[in-house]
Amino acid sequence: MTAKQPHATSGGIAGLEAIARGETTARAWLERSLARIDATDGVVNAFTARTLERARADADRVDAMRAAGQALPPLAGLPYAVKNLFDIEGVVTLAGSKVNRGHPAATADAILVQRLRAAGAVLVGALNMDEYAYGFTTENTHYGPTRNPHDRSRIAGGSSGGSGAAVAAGQVPVSLGSDTNGSIRVPASLCGVWGLKPTFGRLSRRGTFPFVHSIDHLGPFADSAALLARVYDALQYPDSQDPGCHARAVQPVSPSVGSGTQGLRIGVLGGYFDTHATAPARAAVAAAASVLGASRTVEWPDAQMARIAAFIITASEGGSLHLPALRRHAADFEPLSVDRFIAGALQPAHWVARAHRFRRMYRERVLALFQDWDLLLAPATPVAAPEIGTEWLDINGATHPCRPAMGLLTQPISFAGCPVAVAPMWPDGTQGMPIGVQLIAAPWREDIALRAAVALEQAGAAGIRHPHFDEGL
Amino acid sequence: MTAKQPHATSGGIAGLEAIARGETTARAWLERSLARIDATDGVVNAFTARTLERARADADRVDAMRAAGQALPPLAGLPYAVKNLFDIEGVVTLAGSKVNRGHPAATADAILVQRLRAAGAVLVGALNMDEYAYGFTTENTHYGPTRNPHDRSRIAGGSSGGSGAAVAAGQVPVSLGSDTNGSIRVPASLCGVWGLKPTFGRLSRRGTFPFVHSIDHLGPFADSAALLARVYDALQYPDSQDPGCHARAVQPVSPSVGSGTQGLRIGVLGGYFDTHATAPARAAVAAAASVLGASRTVEWPDAQMARIAAFIITASEGGSLHLPALRRHAADFEPLSVDRFIAGALQPAHWVARAHRFRRMYRERVLALFQDWDLLLAPATPVAAPEIGTEWLDINGATHPCRPAMGLLTQPISFAGCPVAVAPMWPDGTQGMPIGVQLIAAPWREDIALRAAVALEQAGAAGIRHPHFDEGL
Repeated sequence: MTAKQPHATSGGIAGLEAIARGETTARAWLERSLARIDATDGVVNAFTARTLERARADADRVDAMRAAGQALPPLAGLPYAVKNLFDIEGVVTLAGSKVNRGHPAATADAILVQRLRAAGAVLVGALNMDEYAYGFTTENTHYGPTRNPHDRSRIAGGSSGGSGAAVAAGQVPVSLGSDTNGSIRVPASLCGVWGLKPTFGRLSRRGTFPFVHSIDHLGPFADSAALLARVYDALQYPDSQDPGCHARAVQPVSPSVGSGTQGLRIGVLGGYFDTHATAPARAAVAAAASVLGASRTVEWPDAQMARIAAFIITASEGGSLHLPALRRHAADFEPLSVDRFIAGALQPAHWVARAHRFRRMYRERVLALFQDWDLLLAPATPVAAPEIGTEWLDINGATHPCRPAMGLLTQPISFAGCPVAVAPMWPDGTQGMPIGVQLIAAPWREDIALRAAVALEQAGAAGIRHPHFDEGL
Repeated sequence: MTAKQPHATSGGIAGLEAIARGETTARAWLERSLARIDATDGVVNAFTARTLERARADADRVDAMRAAGQALPPLAGLPYAVKNLFDIEGVVTLAGSKVNRGHPAATADAILVQRLRAAGAVLVGALNMDEYAYGFTTENTHYGPTRNPHDRSRIAGGSSGGSGAAVAAGQVPVSLGSDTNGSIRVPASLCGVWGLKPTFGRLSRRGTFPFVHSIDHLGPFADSAALLARVYDALQYPDSQDPGCHARAVQPVSPSVGSGTQGLRIGVLGGYFDTHATAPARAAVAAAASVLGASRTVEWPDAQMARIAAFIITASEGGSLHLPALRRHAADFEPLSVDRFIAGALQPAHWVARAHRFRRMYRERVLALFQDWDLLLAPATPVAAPEIGTEWLDINGATHPCRPAMGLLTQPISFAGCPVAVAPMWPDGTQGMPIGVQLIAAPWREDIALRAAVALEQAGAAGIRHPHFDEGL
């Protein structure tokens, strides 16, 4: 179970090239993906729904295009899956909940699912998550925990745990997730896959189940940095109908991501980000820093206060959103988050207004930091994946509640809205488990974060390692 | 006191032309303005500070430019004043409060004051307001009420009451104010002057004392519609350093405001806006509608709910902003608003989050309305100016608390962020007092609102009428 061997279904880029060259069909790739899901998901528990009929129709359409000699779109035949808060036409959008089971099925795909379909990608299903995205562990009481493919006794991270685990397990080369306080970056770190949380406001959120309007981001996971960049380009779409989408134009990164990091001013976050990192997390960052030629330590402003403010805004908006349902049937909610929702809705308005005021000052301070730096490095999680059910965690002699501690290093970054790519690293001292490194750029500079990701990949310093499953394949 | 005769200092456009032709000097214009302030402000109480030294230096600089044969900037020599929440270098920014008296003087001008100075305008002083902009009447307990120049027993409206009254009294042809729920439009209506509340996010708020970050707007008052447009053009400045400034480019309106309203789809708001308007307010709108060729009645969506949501957000952000000072010396606050501040800060977060969620849906509904209409008309206030100290108001048989009722017709519009020009109208049945009409356009279409304003002015249907003061001049 712990031996790391390349798997036949791995390599999304290789798959795309094989399709383009006619060496395989989209349908054959899809069936390999589905077989892998069948063989492994009893252990992993990443999927909550499969969209077989639609997937086969979409794959066949790609193959028909090639047979007709038509030019293929950029992600033709790529199997992928989405966190179950993305609307899929004909499927109930669970958002990890029991309450939503009574909702009607979605009547249209989320915008990002529409984008990937237009790019030729093939949706194979919906993925497990913390209920309503309020958690960092995907220990979902209704649908069971998603298990880390590298050690089934451990968490996959969350709230996009199914999205991280599905890519790590080789079920699909790409998935989509959401990240409010770390929900893409934490599972990317703990599952050892590439992840991207774009700039706040970059990607359209239309057709997804909301959590915290003021902080929610959507983004992709992938089995290589190069594929992460390609998928991100396909997702870009300045959506005038989504008031939360602030992008003004598509800014493709793929043409530049292979250009190296020469000339970039790259620093390593110290202080708070060092205090809350265990030795393996520090080692992962040191390895990345070494490859990228980063030696100086940088102080990120007000990280602790940013985390507090992010908690307050998260709890208030999330709690308010669900309060009508909580009043009717609180017992149907996730036991791990129901009290936080209720308490969040009852906070005094002053706390929330103060948190928003702080955030405006904080963003200015963070922007000022990027006048001196192009890229900043920090661990994505303080530790490698803990055991499922862990309540307390020791970080450098301080005891933290385990579940919220998974977001210690991600929350301050997303609260500023900066884009972050997570690079999967494999430091010593983790029993073979991964820890991700955050590659943090100034708002709207996804290109820089992804350039660094590709540089780490090309240097062999970061990359996915598929686990071996005894159970099959 | 009630006879309406043109006054020698009136006519900002005429003054600018006289300066441009060399028929008068900026210094002479300034001194006429200062003399008018001296003669009338004992009655009106619009000014809280005068900036004589700076004003004379600025006026002399304009005259020196002309003497040197240099081209004059567009507002060369125009005297104006600002609500005392705008920073003026060397002056303490009171924002209508006693608490702020202990603050240090501002070290720089607000951006909009910088803009007007660069355009050649001459700042003569700071103007009275409701404490911290939380009121519609400028019955300021610390600095005394600003009195309506058309009847000193009546309110000037608020919170930019000094700004409305100073223009109405002929003290200055132009002033600046702020509008969160109606604070430009209410005094423009009750004082009978032109006012503009631009699109939310259009003008930079840097260097002004905040009230409600989520809803605050800044904007001008003027003694003619044509001047209002010219001043607005001078104020435009996409300010990348103000996170609340969403303007992407300067969009000058002056070249087009004289082009008439032919082809515009113009409607009159019914329902809520009719229910909460007395007969003279309806008559003012009917007169404007007749000139503009508007006959159809339009239903604005969710006006009542928008007002409730605006109240909740206003109280929470305002209360939170001042809570630290309220904890230390609540007795120094304005008795008319101190309880609302405290209660606002203590609201449950759920109310605020729900109000913000409602606002997002509401904006979409309002935007949809403007697919069918270019311009919508409504009264700016339900009534003409009430007596100072009035507690209760009858509007079509329903009893309303007088002070908040002044914002009944403005709050729903600003909450959607639409630009609104107010045209001063003089209907029958008001004992010679004015009532303004709101000219409401879709977000970012100030040009349409101002085209309609200029059309009403050119038709002689709307315009300023300076009062006669027995006391002098």
